[in-house]
Order: sequence, then structure tokens, then C-alpha cells
Amino acid sequence: MSKKLVDIDINAIENPYFLKDLSYKELDLLSNKIRNYIIEVVSKNGGHLSSNLGVVEATIALNRVFDFKKDKLLFDVGHQCYTHKILTGRSLEKLRKKDGVSGFPKKSESIYDCFESGHSSNSISNALGFALKRDISNANYDIVVFIGDSSISNGLSFEALNDDLIQKHKIIIVLNDNDMSISKTVGSTSRFLQKISTSVLYNKLKVSYKNSLSKNKLGKWIYRTSYKFKNFIKNLFFRKNLFTLMNLNYIGVIDGHNIKAIERALNKAKNSTKSVIVHIKTIKGLGYKFAQEDEEGYYHGVAPFKINKDKLFLNSKSYSYLYANYMKEILKKDKDVFLLSPATLVGSDLERFKNEFPEQIIDVGIAEEHCLSLAAGMALNGLKPYIFIYSTFLQRAFDQIIHDIARDNLNVTLMIDRSGFVGEDGPSHMGIFDESFLLEVPNTIVSMASCKSLAKKLIEISYLNKNFMCIRFPKDNYIDDSEDIYNDLKIGEWKYVLKHDFDSVVLTFGPCLNEFKKYIIQNNLNIDLINCVFQNPINEQHIKDLLKYKTIIIYNGYGVENGFNFKIISLLNKYNFSNKVISYAIKNKFLEHQTIYECVQSENLLISDVLKDFK
Amino acid sequence: MSKKLVDIDINAIENPYFLKDLSYKELDLLSNKIRNYIIEVVSKNGGHLSSNLGVVEATIALNRVFDFKKDKLLFDVGHQCYTHKILTGRSLEKLRKKDGVSGFPKKSESIYDCFESGHSSNSISNALGFALKRDISNANYDIVVFIGDSSISNGLSFEALNDDLIQKHKIIIVLNDNDMSISKTVGSTSRFLQKISTSVLYNKLKVSYKNSLSKNKLGKWIYRTSYKFKNFIKNLFFRKNLFTLMNLNYIGVIDGHNIKAIERALNKAKNSTKSVIVHIKTIKGLGYKFAQEDEEGYYHGVAPFKINKDKLFLNSKSYSYLYANYMKEILKKDKDVFLLSPATLVGSDLERFKNEFPEQIIDVGIAEEHCLSLAAGMALNGLKPYIFIYSTFLQRAFDQIIHDIARDNLNVTLMIDRSGFVGEDGPSHMGIFDESFLLEVPNTIVSMASCKSLAKKLIEISYLNKNFMCIRFPKDNYIDDSEDIYNDLKIGEWKYVLKHDFDSVVLTFGPCLNEFKKYIIQNNLNIDLINCVFQNPINEQHIKDLLKYKTIIIYNGYGVENGFNFKIISLLNKYNFSNKVISYAIKNKFLEHQTIYECVQSENLLISDVLKDFK
Repeated sequence: MSKKLVDIDINAIENPYFLKDLSYKELDLLSNKIRNYIIEVVSKNGGHLSSNLGVVEATIALNRVFDFKKDKLLFDVGHQCYTHKILTGRSLEKLRKKDGVSGFPKKSESIYDCFESGHSSNSISNALGFALKRDISNANYDIVVFIGDSSISNGLSFEALNDDLIQKHKIIIVLNDNDMSISKTVGSTSRFLQKISTSVLYNKLKVSYKNSLSKNKLGKWIYRTSYKFKNFIKNLFFRKNLFTLMNLNYIGVIDGHNIKAIERALNKAKNSTKSVIVHIKTIKGLGYKFAQEDEEGYYHGVAPFKINKDKLFLNSKSYSYLYANYMKEILKKDKDVFLLSPATLVGSDLERFKNEFPEQIIDVGIAEEHCLSLAAGMALNGLKPYIFIYSTFLQRAFDQIIHDIARDNLNVTLMIDRSGFVGEDGPSHMGIFDESFLLEVPNTIVSMASCKSLAKKLIEISYLNKNFMCIRFPKDNYIDDSEDIYNDLKIGEWKYVLKHDFDSVVLTFGPCLNEFKKYIIQNNLNIDLINCVFQNPINEQHIKDLLKYKTIIIYNGYGVENGFNFKIISLLNKYNFSNKVISYAIKNKFLEHQTIYECVQSENLLISDVLKDFK
Repeated sequence: MSKKLVDIDINAIENPYFLKDLSYKELDLLSNKIRNYIIEVVSKNGGHLSSNLGVVEATIALNRVFDFKKDKLLFDVGHQCYTHKILTGRSLEKLRKKDGVSGFPKKSESIYDCFESGHSSNSISNALGFALKRDISNANYDIVVFIGDSSISNGLSFEALNDDLIQKHKIIIVLNDNDMSISKTVGSTSRFLQKISTSVLYNKLKVSYKNSLSKNKLGKWIYRTSYKFKNFIKNLFFRKNLFTLMNLNYIGVIDGHNIKAIERALNKAKNSTKSVIVHIKTIKGLGYKFAQEDEEGYYHGVAPFKINKDKLFLNSKSYSYLYANYMKEILKKDKDVFLLSPATLVGSDLERFKNEFPEQIIDVGIAEEHCLSLAAGMALNGLKPYIFIYSTFLQRAFDQIIHDIARDNLNVTLMIDRSGFVGEDGPSHMGIFDESFLLEVPNTIVSMASCKSLAKKLIEISYLNKNFMCIRFPKDNYIDDSEDIYNDLKIGEWKYVLKHDFDSVVLTFGPCLNEFKKYIIQNNLNIDLINCVFQNPINEQHIKDLLKYKTIIIYNGYGVENGFNFKIISLLNKYNFSNKVISYAIKNKFLEHQTIYECVQSENLLISDVLKDFK
């Protein structure tokens, strides 16, 4: 690698060793170059923009101070790893594309990745496992966690920080504090971190001390001579924060865009004998005007966009957008309805009217468990909370579903976003597990809409319903229809979409139903089609009505076979159905990042394939 | 209710109003009376002993200061509610018995219970939901959380404490600090709480300040005259802890056995305009010598016992005991094997040899998520962690199973205790959901032993296995056999226990298999019997071998039908099996507290009933 910066071809970087030969001035130039490259790539491929622009210098400093071939780097969440990928010789050209690099750390991509994240806040716990192994082997290398202010505020991080293991086994935690997390409006933007910066207590004390002594000459003299003591107090006050309470070393606050300063702090951390927090302050989105000015988080995760054109807007054809609109109408008329979100207000499209309902829309931050337990408390008292949560993050609150909500069949509605394949975010974010899980939980209504009319109806039903209910929806765009077959829909009911009393029938639900309908009509197939709107409960009369068919095709495009499919097959068995049942569902395996269409294709779930024998 | 304490019949108490007429001396006498009554009842019925003995005075004080007909009391976990039940007119005579009072708060029992807990650490989140409702209604009552030091150290509590809602909506949190949680050896005995008590920092400062000034006469004078300032500092330092960092009011530390002192603190808290912590210090097990001296937690939850006889010991016929013994042998020979527990060392029977393996047995406290993520980090680095966890608490770490462990198919073994019905602990503790959930998670081996030989074999398999594996076991006693049919068992395999090529076969697993065997032999039934040791993966040859049967009975005594049963029925469907399949499993509903036998009976799962048509 040439040392001359002007020559540096970002795609030709093989490893981070060249960084050591560059001056700080050159490193700053490199940072800009990397920043522009990230903006360019993300504008083409989509991906995480703001977080990656914020950590360029910090990642360079990390790769200069440590050698992550032997030292270990654990990115919490992992969506901020682009600079690290660049510096460790991975081209981002095919970022998030099938067979290209993942948007998250990936062990199979590089020896420089030792940890695969995706979800928030497990990095410190994992790092303690790493440290335990290092120490019982008497090995000598550093273990570095890189974690954001919002992730460290999650309960799981707290549990790890509070474990005695962190006293015995040294890890370095770089706390990337951009005072924002995903969205500036997040409720719990770490009050304990704000305390560190403002240090109100210290200022209060200083004034009080001065006042108490400066009333006469002697007092003034005392004030001057006790300067040393004052500094001692100052030091104590500054150092007293959550981390020092937990008996961790604390270094900060460091300018996260000053490579030299970060390096100094990291070297100090390296020399610390006990676990240490390096608190750096960064500016999310730095280098891209719109991302930098974005207080809501629209530039957090983005679809492809045109550089330096106007602001990004959400997809107004998404189910998130649609459901958000319906909820807005309900918020207007009913003060007892609340929308709760665990740090995904933008993704769930609630951000755009949050200010209109400051009391009724609550973002609790990355705290899924708390979000559901809070909703339980609200429902117990007659309020009506709707929780907008991604399927993959709902996994983090499964016990709250069972223990806090379903046990008492509380009036809580889960609006489960990103159900089914999620595509480019890859295996950590798949929304394929919630449905099967929900079907085993007592008192759980599980439903999914296939079009706008039905979505509206499900919201109506949920609003009138007084019990626990789940409305799942995928990343697909909705169909702008105005069907009236759902007008009289009741909980547990299915609806025929095509009914000619043929010998065969397709049972399915969700937006893919429309593709079935289109395909069957276009190809003139002799197949009936039922929209199994409710996956639980199921009116058993519907099962009895199926017994006449010679062939039943069950197609689940949004969950694994253990859920809806296994349940229907078992119900048919209960009624001694002995004709043919063919089952299609998502396989329970972790798919690598690729488009949703590629997922459907690779899993042999294309409707044309499913129906090919009926042509 | 008579005011004369000598006359008080505990079973005649109707409501707590009589408390207001008693003197503190009388209240202390009442406390003793209640304590003795609790010891007596728990010795007969089993239940939670130590925690209830610790909170008698605090519960009396709470019921004097507040009126929980309008004010709200939320017991975290809830196993410390016995005194509250007594004071609110509920007889404990049938405690934990079918149709008797529950061992946990229960809304249906009394207007004085507004919240049903069971699992740890959701009380603060729930209370914020309560407070939200109160405040938007402009109502005026107090919301009081009663929570232990170990529960408040869990991540969920932290998320609630860190939510801005707690700044806007006042709640009172009584922190019951017995410096112990369930077991004294718990790793994370809240370092931040210890800080409060020892206040090292303050003492350090005081000495330093004195030293810096007392070197001459003037200095001594300054030291004396700045007494006021010193107290100001002292006050600040004492008040500076996790809670004050979080901008909560803090009152403490209060003697939790001094009713007057607690009342004073509670009244102060009542007058606080913002959310407030009342930190009381109690002695767990107070009043019963063995419980008080018990540092390990043997007297936490107990089976019936003889009062004032020697120490309690664990059931040496339990699967917990058996598996613990097998693991002990492995720990001895392999330093890379670790046993992890989330605050259940005693329950999992690992406590008795913890001191022998201080490095290899790790109790992380009530921190299930952290426990699994820590194990993932260890496995990523070549260590071999086994996690001993109750089925019901595993629900709290479902995302860590999917995201941290199964995704990478890591070398972690889950030892899932209390799978299936748990009986007296009631609906919050049922172990019936994990199996179905685990079957949908990719890369997950799920198994259960029916006897000692097989348990041993499963441990052997797990030790040699390099991937994610689960061994479930119920509360049943094990059969002390020495069967050799399992010697060559491989992952995914089933074994015939009775094979005569009859027309019918029973598929089952776990200890209930022995009852089937016995019943079939004793009644000379024409039924084969297969031990489906592995519920996942399943060698599909076994399914093909079933196709010859006229009747297949699937019996799952340890999980809901959505798991093993639905899966087998669907596999049979895949092979076009059209003969009879009869499915028995636990229904997915929440059963009230009763014995395990009563659960089996009420769910129509008695083996004699299942096989009655074959006689």
C-alpha cells in the first residue's frame, strides 16, 4: 500500500497496517475519503448511513492502537462497521447484496471480525466470555467493545456491567456517545450519561463552597489556599458516574473526531489494569449535511437515495405507513390510546406525527422488555396501548408476552412490523420466528392483512377488542384496494377470495395472497383460495369445511412451518382428513443477506413454482 | 377486630384497618405472631420462607401508611406477599393448595392485590403504566413498588428506572435490601447498592480534608468552622448513588424491622413530589434460626419440613441432583467446562459443590439474558458452557437463544430444569412453552431423558457434541435404572422400549415413558412403545418406520401440542400417513396452582385414561 494518501485507492486496502505510517493530517484526509466513499456506496446500495459516518476517526484510531488480528473488536449492534470493513480489506461495492459483504460484522468475511452482532447490547456480555477465556489461558491481548449510548442503556448491557466478572476480567469499552441513539427523541437518552457531561453537582458545589468562604478576607484566603482540595473534589465529582459507581475505570469525555485524542485515551485504557470505559463524543452523520442535521433518525438506515438531493421520506406504500395513518385517526378521537415504540419511531413511521401527540406516543428507547411491561401496566389500568415493534426485536420480550400480557389476557395490541423475510439486513434480523411462537401462547390473537381494506378492518377489530391481539405485517407494499368481503369479519374467521368448489384449495394470508389470486385467475387454474386472516384463534368450522377438498395447499410466506402450517395439518388430522396436504413455509434456518425476492426464490417459495403442477 | 393483641386470631383478620389502633409495641408482638404463623404454614404446605420472614414489619408499615384499596401495591416477583395476604384477610391455611390462596399476589383473591407477578423485575415498568393512568385522570393515590435488591439489579428494572416516564410520573419504590437476593453467593449483589452503604468515597474525602487542614492551628480552626460545609459535602456524597444519578429522590438506609422508622420514611416518600426510592435493610429469614443463618438460599423456596429440625437438604432423587452430579465429574476432568446459573444455584443443586469449583461455576444473578450472551462469548472462544436454567426463566432469554447462540450454532448446552408442569407455583412458573419454541429455532438439538441411564447418556452426548444442545428435565424424580438400550444412542435417534410389531404405538419421552411401560406391561396391552429421546432433530427413518402402524398415539407430558405433537403429525403427513394419529399434550393455557398430579388429571393426561380404549 502506497503511503501517499493521494494515491490511496480505498478498494485496494488490504489491511490496516498502512495506517501507522500516516500523519494525523493524512489520517484526517483519509477519514474524509472514507466518509465520501460510504456516502456513495450507501446511496447506491442502501444501508446504515449516520452511524457509519460518525465513527470513521474512532475506527481508524482503534485500528492503529490495536491489532485486531490478535486483539478482539466487538461492535455492538454492528451496523457501524463499514470503516472497519474498509480498513481490513473488504470492498463495500456489493454491500448488503447477495454474495457481497454484509452490513454487519461477519466472521466468515475476515479474520478481523471475531463477533457477529445485529441486535443491540449483547457485546459486553459476550466480551466477558472472551476475557474469561483469555485469562484462564494466561494469554495477552485486548478485548474491545464498541457500543453506542443507546445500546449501553439497555438492560442487557447493565446486567453485564453489573456482573462481578467485569471486575476480574479486563475489557475495554469504547462508549460512542452521539447523544442521539437512533432518534434524538428517544426517551431514555441515558440520563446517567448526560449527568457526566453537565456535572451539575460539581458546579453547584463549587458555587456553594465559594459563597461560604468569600464573605471575608480570611475566607478569600482559605478559598485560594484550598485550591488543591477543590481540585480533589472536582476530580471526585467528575469521576463519579454510573461507571465509577460500578468500580470501572473511566476515561472521558474525548472528542470522537480527533484521532490523536482517541489514541491517547485508548493507550491509557490499554494500560489500565481493570475494565475501563473510554467515553467518546461523536457527531452522527458527520460529513453528510442531511444526515448531520437529521434529529429524527431518517438517515439511520436508508434505502438507495440521490446524494445531496432533498430529505429522505418514508415509503408511503408500506404497511408501516398505512397502519401509522390508521392509528393517527384513533389517537385523535381516543385519549386512552397510546402508541409505544422501542426506539423505532422512524422505522414504524410514527415519527412524522409524534409532535402532534406528545403524550400518546411514547418511545422508551432500546428497551423491548420494559416496553411490553409498561404496556401491561397501562392495560391493567384501562388504557389501550399499541406497541409498534419489529418482529426480530419482539424476540427480546417473549417473556413479557407470556408472563405480563397473555397470562392476564390484557388489552394490548402488538403491531409486529418486518414480519417474514427482511432481506438485506441478513440473518440477525429475520422476522420469521414470532408467528410460530405466538401460536403457542394462550389467549393470543394472531392476524395479518393482505390489503388495505383488510388492514383497516383489523385495526377496527383491534380497537373494539378488549384482549391481547397481534397484527403482523411484512416489509411489502400494500395493495390499494377497496374490497368489501372483509366488512363483517370476526376474530377467528377466514374468507374465501376465490370460491368455485374446485377440488383444490390454497390456504394463505398476508400480501402474498394477492399474488396467488392474480396467478390463479391469469392462468385459469381450478383452485379455490382462502384468506386465513387469523392464524389464531381459528374457527374450527373452517377446518371442517376443508374436509371436502382433494388437495389442500398451505402456504405461509411470513413464518416458519412450525407455526401456521403445522397447526393446520394437525387440525386436519384431528378431523381425520386423509387427502393430500401440501405445506409450504419458510424453512427454519438463517438466511444470509440478499433481497427479499432472492430469499423467496432460494427457499422455493415462488408462487409460480408452488402452483406449477396445477397448470 | 379486637384491639387486644393477645386476642388476635390471625385467621380472623379481615382487613388492615385494625393496624392503626395498635401501639408500636403491639405491632412488634403482632410481627412475631405473623412470623410464627408463616413458619407453621410453610412447614406444612411448602412455599417461600426466608423472603416472607424478612418483610413482616415492612408490610405492616406499608399497610398503615397506605390504603391499598385505593393506593396500589406492586410486589416484584411476589413471593414475599404472605404478610400482606394475612393483613388483608386471606387465610394461608390452604396456601398453594388447589382452591387455596396462591403463593403470589392474585387479583381475583382480593381488592388489595392489583398486580400479579411471578417473574422478577417487571414491577417498576408496570408501575409506570399505573402512574400514567393516574396522572392523565388527575387522580390522587400512591403507587408503591416493593422490590428486592437482586430484582432491581436485573436489566428490566434498569430500563424502567432509566425511562423518562419515571421523571414525569411519581412512583414510590421500596427497595428491600437483604444483601443476599436468593443466594448470598450471587455474583452481582448490586455493587451499586454496596457503595451506598459503605460510602468509601465520603470517608476518603473526610480524612483527606482533615489531613490537608490540620497541620497547623489555623488549619484546625478552619476545619472546625467549616463544619457546616463538611456536612454539605457529606450529604451530597451520601445521596450520590445510582438512583440520585438517575434523578430520583432517595431515602435510606432504613432499618427494615423498625416499623416506626419505615413509616417515617414512607410518609416522607408520600410527600415527595418526584419518584422516590425508600431503601430498607432487612434480614432474610428473620425469626427462624435455620433460615436466618442460611447463606446459600436453601430456605428460599421449601418443600414441607419439620420445624426446628436440622437443615433442609435437596431431593437427591431429582433430575437436578442427578445432572449436577454428572456435571461435577466433567468439571473435575475438563477445565474448559463451565456451569452458569441465573441466581438458581440451589434450585439447580449446584450450590453444594460450588466452593470446589469457584472458577468453573458462575452465578450471574437474576440476569438471564446476560447469562446466555456470556455463554455465547465463552463458546465463541472454545470454552464449553452449560447453563442450568428453569424453563420458565429461559423465556426471558429467547432472543439470546436465537440471535447469540443458535445463529452461529455455538457449543452451548442448555440444561432446562422444571420443564412441564410445575404445580404449586402456579401459572407464572409453568415450564410448558420452551419445547415448542425451541423446535422452531434452527440448529437446535432438543432432548429429554426418561431415566438415569439415559440422563447419563445425554450428558455424554452433550459433552462430545460441539453444537448447541438442550437437555430438558422436569420436576419428577428419576428412575434408578441401568438400561443398556441407550448405549449406542446418537443425536436424532429414538429407541423402541416395547416392540412386538403390534398395530398401535405410543410415541413419548421423558420420565412419563416409564409409566407407559409399566401400564402397558401390567395390562398386557397390544401396543408398542418408542422413546422419542430427541424432539429435534428427528431421524426421518423413524417416521418412515411408523407408517406401518394403524394407530399412533403421541403423548407429550412436558410441553404444549404446538411443539413435538404438531411436528410429528406434520412429518407423518409429509409421508402421506392416513391411518389414525391421536395427540395428547399439555393444552396451551395457564393453569392455576395445584399439585403436578392435579394438573395431569385436570388436563386429561392420565396414562390410564389415554390407554383406556386399548384395554
